[in-house]
Amino acid sequence: MMRKLIIASTSTVYGSGYLEYILPELENFFQEVEEVVFIPYARPGGISHDEYTAIAQKGFARINKKIVGLHTFKDPEKALKKAEAVFTGGGNTFLLVTQLYKLKLMPVLRERIYEGMRYFGTSAGANITGLTMQTTNDMPIVYPPSFKTLGAVPFNINPHYIDPVEGAKHMGETRETRIKEFHKINTEPVIGLREGSWLEVTGDRIVLKGTYKARVFEQNKVPYEIVRGSVVEL
Amino acid sequence: MMRKLIIASTSTVYGSGYLEYILPELENFFQEVEEVVFIPYARPGGISHDEYTAIAQKGFARINKKIVGLHTFKDPEKALKKAEAVFTGGGNTFLLVTQLYKLKLMPVLRERIYEGMRYFGTSAGANITGLTMQTTNDMPIVYPPSFKTLGAVPFNINPHYIDPVEGAKHMGETRETRIKEFHKINTEPVIGLREGSWLEVTGDRIVLKGTYKARVFEQNKVPYEIVRGSVVEL
Repeated sequence: MMRKLIIASTSTVYGSGYLEYILPELENFFQEVEEVVFIPYARPGGISHDEYTAIAQKGFARINKKIVGLHTFKDPEKALKKAEAVFTGGGNTFLLVTQLYKLKLMPVLRERIYEGMRYFGTSAGANITGLTMQTTNDMPIVYPPSFKTLGAVPFNINPHYIDPVEGAKHMGETRETRIKEFHKINTEPVIGLREGSWLEVTGDRIVLKGTYKARVFEQNKVPYEIVRGSVVEL
Repeated sequence: MMRKLIIASTSTVYGSGYLEYILPELENFFQEVEEVVFIPYARPGGISHDEYTAIAQKGFARINKKIVGLHTFKDPEKALKKAEAVFTGGGNTFLLVTQLYKLKLMPVLRERIYEGMRYFGTSAGANITGLTMQTTNDMPIVYPPSFKTLGAVPFNINPHYIDPVEGAKHMGETRETRIKEFHKINTEPVIGLREGSWLEVTGDRIVLKGTYKARVFEQNKVPYEIVRGSVVEL
């Protein structure tokens, strides 16, 4: 079987409803799937896992798919082993990765993805498809046992990629500077996915889709842009 | 002896030279100090530790202080034990904390600060004066053995604090949202220091100084502002 993933920068684009911009793609991607298991662990609070799952359910109801929260299973490992498809929502990557390790789900999820189970991830759920979570934008609100993630693609993801703002007076690092600093120490290539763009993975073929170009960072190379429809070769 | 620290949001404010905005304060703070040991470990690259130290030297030359890089000592632990004063520059907090643990310097630095050795930190160097580094804005480019930091103050620091931008179309979390998420899991209060502001610590007395108000976040409380000259009571 071959990997099938949609790796999306964000769940929501400005001025549009939850998942709205990507629903036609999801309808196609999940065509033969009846039920999608939702991983709500990235959401640090304010809303419960039930409430977060309800949001995902509402989004997927528009394409007539059933969503069931992984937290509702007594044995989440078994639930993942049996899942037809998985959707991991956004939130805080440190929290998501910590929970996945704590529940011993990281290897199971990796295995299922390599077996060909369809996987859709947004934001933190996209970040974890990379080799490591080390190009997340999130705050380290919890200490995960490792930064290694699923390695479903041979590079890292930077979700919510944002270009430097012209004339900004803030002295914090730009996103590009942060990723360049990552490459002072690490060798993994990084794809900066702007909000509204996603990667479609079909086996070894990875295609950029959605609204924008993506920015690719490789160690010791000048960053470059790839256009919609490009096959990613990293 | 009592703690004496200056904990600054940034080394540089927009449109001004390195440390320029805070030099009068530093001149006063380091009045009786001849030589300051500079910790350059936060800087992930592009420039070497020597080059980074040269920048610090140039900044401090304007107030006639000698700066010596900690990386130039054969035994950095001994160097810290003998240091008259310490300045830790900014960069990446994950890298800084990893290096401090690797070289076994975290307990020594904590001890010296509690003995009354003067400490000045900007950005990452400010972040590590808190209880944990978990309110850093940096990318996790390296995996530190722990997120615990110096605990020179009874709260956490968020350097380069930035207010939400009106009408922003980016869907990434605002700084305030990130800190609120931190408080879903952690109890440490957080002070968001805007660029141009700093905390002056004299024993148990902590005063907000510089250009702006600071934003204080406590678990289960509405965030609030404190004005310049306020004594921080957390």
